[in-house]
Amino acid sequence: MTSTKRKTSKPKRPWQDVAHEAQQYRDRTVAAVRPELPALPSPLPRNVMAIPGQILSQRELYITSLSVSCLLDALAGRGVERITAVDVINAFLRRAALAQRLTNCVTELLTTRALGRAKELDDYFEKHGKTVGPLHGLPISVKEQIGMAGLGLNASFVALWDKVATEDAHVLQILHNAGAIFHARTAEPQTMMHLETSSNLYGRTVNPYNSDLSSGGSSGGEGALGGLGGTVLGLGSDVGGSIRSPAANNGIYGLRPSAFRVPTDGWSSVACGVDEIATVIGPLSSSLSGIEILMQTVLSARPWLTEPALIPMPWTPFAITGPLKIAIMWHDDVVLPHPPITRVLKSMASAMQALENVTVVDWKPYLHDEAWAIVSTLYYPDGGVEDIDMLESADEPILPLTRWIIQDNPCVRELSMQELNYWKEEREAYRKEYAQYWHATSQSDSGEVDVILCPVGPGCAPKHETAKYWGYTSQWNLLDYPAVVFPVGKANREADEKKRDAQWLSGQDKMNWDLYEPETFDGVPISLQLVARRCEDEKLLAVAKWLQEKLEFPFR
Amino acid sequence: MTSTKRKTSKPKRPWQDVAHEAQQYRDRTVAAVRPELPALPSPLPRNVMAIPGQILSQRELYITSLSVSCLLDALAGRGVERITAVDVINAFLRRAALAQRLTNCVTELLTTRALGRAKELDDYFEKHGKTVGPLHGLPISVKEQIGMAGLGLNASFVALWDKVATEDAHVLQILHNAGAIFHARTAEPQTMMHLETSSNLYGRTVNPYNSDLSSGGSSGGEGALGGLGGTVLGLGSDVGGSIRSPAANNGIYGLRPSAFRVPTDGWSSVACGVDEIATVIGPLSSSLSGIEILMQTVLSARPWLTEPALIPMPWTPFAITGPLKIAIMWHDDVVLPHPPITRVLKSMASAMQALENVTVVDWKPYLHDEAWAIVSTLYYPDGGVEDIDMLESADEPILPLTRWIIQDNPCVRELSMQELNYWKEEREAYRKEYAQYWHATSQSDSGEVDVILCPVGPGCAPKHETAKYWGYTSQWNLLDYPAVVFPVGKANREADEKKRDAQWLSGQDKMNWDLYEPETFDGVPISLQLVARRCEDEKLLAVAKWLQEKLEFPFR
Repeated sequence: MTSTKRKTSKPKRPWQDVAHEAQQYRDRTVAAVRPELPALPSPLPRNVMAIPGQILSQRELYITSLSVSCLLDALAGRGVERITAVDVINAFLRRAALAQRLTNCVTELLTTRALGRAKELDDYFEKHGKTVGPLHGLPISVKEQIGMAGLGLNASFVALWDKVATEDAHVLQILHNAGAIFHARTAEPQTMMHLETSSNLYGRTVNPYNSDLSSGGSSGGEGALGGLGGTVLGLGSDVGGSIRSPAANNGIYGLRPSAFRVPTDGWSSVACGVDEIATVIGPLSSSLSGIEILMQTVLSARPWLTEPALIPMPWTPFAITGPLKIAIMWHDDVVLPHPPITRVLKSMASAMQALENVTVVDWKPYLHDEAWAIVSTLYYPDGGVEDIDMLESADEPILPLTRWIIQDNPCVRELSMQELNYWKEEREAYRKEYAQYWHATSQSDSGEVDVILCPVGPGCAPKHETAKYWGYTSQWNLLDYPAVVFPVGKANREADEKKRDAQWLSGQDKMNWDLYEPETFDGVPISLQLVARRCEDEKLLAVAKWLQEKLEFPFR
Repeated sequence: MTSTKRKTSKPKRPWQDVAHEAQQYRDRTVAAVRPELPALPSPLPRNVMAIPGQILSQRELYITSLSVSCLLDALAGRGVERITAVDVINAFLRRAALAQRLTNCVTELLTTRALGRAKELDDYFEKHGKTVGPLHGLPISVKEQIGMAGLGLNASFVALWDKVATEDAHVLQILHNAGAIFHARTAEPQTMMHLETSSNLYGRTVNPYNSDLSSGGSSGGEGALGGLGGTVLGLGSDVGGSIRSPAANNGIYGLRPSAFRVPTDGWSSVACGVDEIATVIGPLSSSLSGIEILMQTVLSARPWLTEPALIPMPWTPFAITGPLKIAIMWHDDVVLPHPPITRVLKSMASAMQALENVTVVDWKPYLHDEAWAIVSTLYYPDGGVEDIDMLESADEPILPLTRWIIQDNPCVRELSMQELNYWKEEREAYRKEYAQYWHATSQSDSGEVDVILCPVGPGCAPKHETAKYWGYTSQWNLLDYPAVVFPVGKANREADEKKRDAQWLSGQDKMNWDLYEPETFDGVPISLQLVARRCEDEKLLAVAKWLQEKLEFPFR
């Protein structure tokens, strides 16, 4: 078991010294990339998406533009020009180093390790004429909190700066055995419980489309790195939206799998035993096929044989053979999404209605406000004491979004054992009511709803320190439904005017509306979320892929 | 959600009055069975197993001797003499009424309901020439704590005598829809947490082979009723051995399924939200095929669609196509089983070694003493306060085995949230170590161990108030491994002398050894337990059936 038993005695140094050391270490790993990066424009423009095209070589741009499946074909020499693992890793290391300088998304580049492993894989291929496994030579980036043997595992706590993982996390062992190469470790926020990414150890990760906006979080390093093309497949974690928010904010794909399918052993957080709401590990990728390849590879290793909390359920690709029924949840009855979201939902609805064999219906949300009370209570059965103690033990400042989720949240307080049981009963009751509510759709002529299409959040990438409404993602964590997000378009100041007819749905609705400024969000990605029933991950991805083939989103 | 929110204010009556009312109610339902039972021998002999043959008609004996599959064939008129549901139910009601008078195993006979339903089913069959479902007319007995609409749901707490279930438990809805008829509700002990069956409401359930011995528990009513042939299929629950102990003590079959496969909604206990160690509902039956039919019927209803805590995993029969590797755990390194158990284990080992395609190896237990510390701590995160409060609210006496498991148990105390997390981490660590320990057997030439054969307990049915060693069953609850028990033989005073060479393994070992008396246990059933890895319920039953076919146990 990987746990974080540690002494919480005061460190000998001010937290600023520790942070300085962490950032110097990070910067040294980034500076080790060759060829060295040239000087960047100063000051950087708000939108840095064009900069890789100005800095990297054509060859690097070509390699890093390939999808996961094309990269795997090229690495295995399947019917296309073969590209060596060393070439692939060099290109991605360089693009990741650039992404770090543009958005501050990386905690560590694994230059030496990754190139060493790439060389080994190339030698193997030369010698045996075949790959070591299905992911031979594929670069994969990893959120820092997923442990790697011999490397730090601080989960962005200053107090844990000295902690070192003794072994690779289970999921990384599987990916390594399949031939993957880990090239970058990525940033996460203080306590992991922000839908943004900012920590005292590493600073803030910004959005590559607009540095005034958030990369999302808590897997925001993965999001920004993927948005800038410094990775095509990465691992994040999600207990309230932490894979989906950064994927959406940066215009890439992200899956929150059903709990207990992807291994989490070796994942570090303060309170490992807390499982009232399960944290999952899952993929972010530049493509849906990247996500599917990750899931298939991990589950084909039968990880439940050595991590018994996992459900022994192989990955069984789902074939769409009959008609589909897709429900659209326009809003959650608590917060109306910003105009860009509603606009693309309408586009999707029209496009889907034009498809044969698809029935489109509206999804009326079932008490999503109650869901937040349950989930946010169960995030912190200890009232957040362990997190706060950890921060205070290093005298590091409590950041505003930490304060907001723990200390300003009326649901968070240390529960008695009886209160904990009460809230777990409430959770089970809500899950059951929701399942029955969904199942009741099978009474209609068009049959049971297959998937729900809905917003990923109340807007596009928010301004820093404003991501305070989790309901669009945490809802599915509470229910343990798999959810995939994908880019559908870009916000547009003209198409997405600030006007609404609807009454306020809630105080949060008004707060969210006040945050909308058409100019600020102009040009940033708009993403949507598709949700299926528990453990229907295969069906979810099949429907998402099918829709993408038919509708060819992201729309231009 | 079925929960037990209730007022714990003092009842207006002494507990003895409530118990008297409960027993009078029970006795009225038993007396309603027709034809009336004749007077029984007085005093009853210790062993009452022969009495049904002296009291019941040949027709009743024939019907109640049929297995579940033969009964279903007869009820459906498949290639044999058709028997009506009314005839079947009448025979089982009468035998159940007799069993109640012999062992005190029933809390309520459902004479009117069951006969009404049987009549309906017969009418349906007459009219349509077909059955309503795969269990058409099959009598099923049910442990009292599994709720039935409109009937009491007291879980043997005096304080809950007035509580009435508002709907049938989920699993009962499925069985009803498949055509089953519930004919008896069966006894359970105070707080459910004894491996025996005794409560202030209903008194003690004794073993039909020897009234000085225990029926087992907590599903002891099911065990004794099944042992005497008053039911061929029943539902119990198991969090530490509560299906397996009574099945073993009474010479019938019992399965503890993997958690979250069989629905538990509508099951009543005091602390519904406590799920650190999952309570499961599962079958007891006169045959392995009865158990398999139950599992298949329940899972084919896809219960996860409306009870989302369940794993969406259909019942997928397992075909034995290759060699089997069976490990024998002779003892658990804590308590050496009594001589009858070791003798039949040796018989099984020899018989299995003679089979083609079977490899028999020894299983070295992995820290089973630690397992008990973890599981017994996690049974009571609240220190047992809720149970004790419930007992005290009715002023009912705390029975010795309740006192033993809650108050005399050094592991039980109210945990802080941090302590709870610590113990959950210990649980996860132990589960992982055990899974890896099992998986490591795949390194040998003969491949991975398929199943473990082991004792069900430290002896045969124990004397009353002595069932204090749970390790042989609770071990698999902690690990969430499916386990099936089956009768293998009978204890024999001559074959099973009281002698041992081994040193004491522990203080518990000495205590257990002191309980062994060859004369006392002479002639009572000896059962064994087969265990598979988590969620391999189908494989477990397939191996058990295969072994039974090859070896033809129970041995004579």
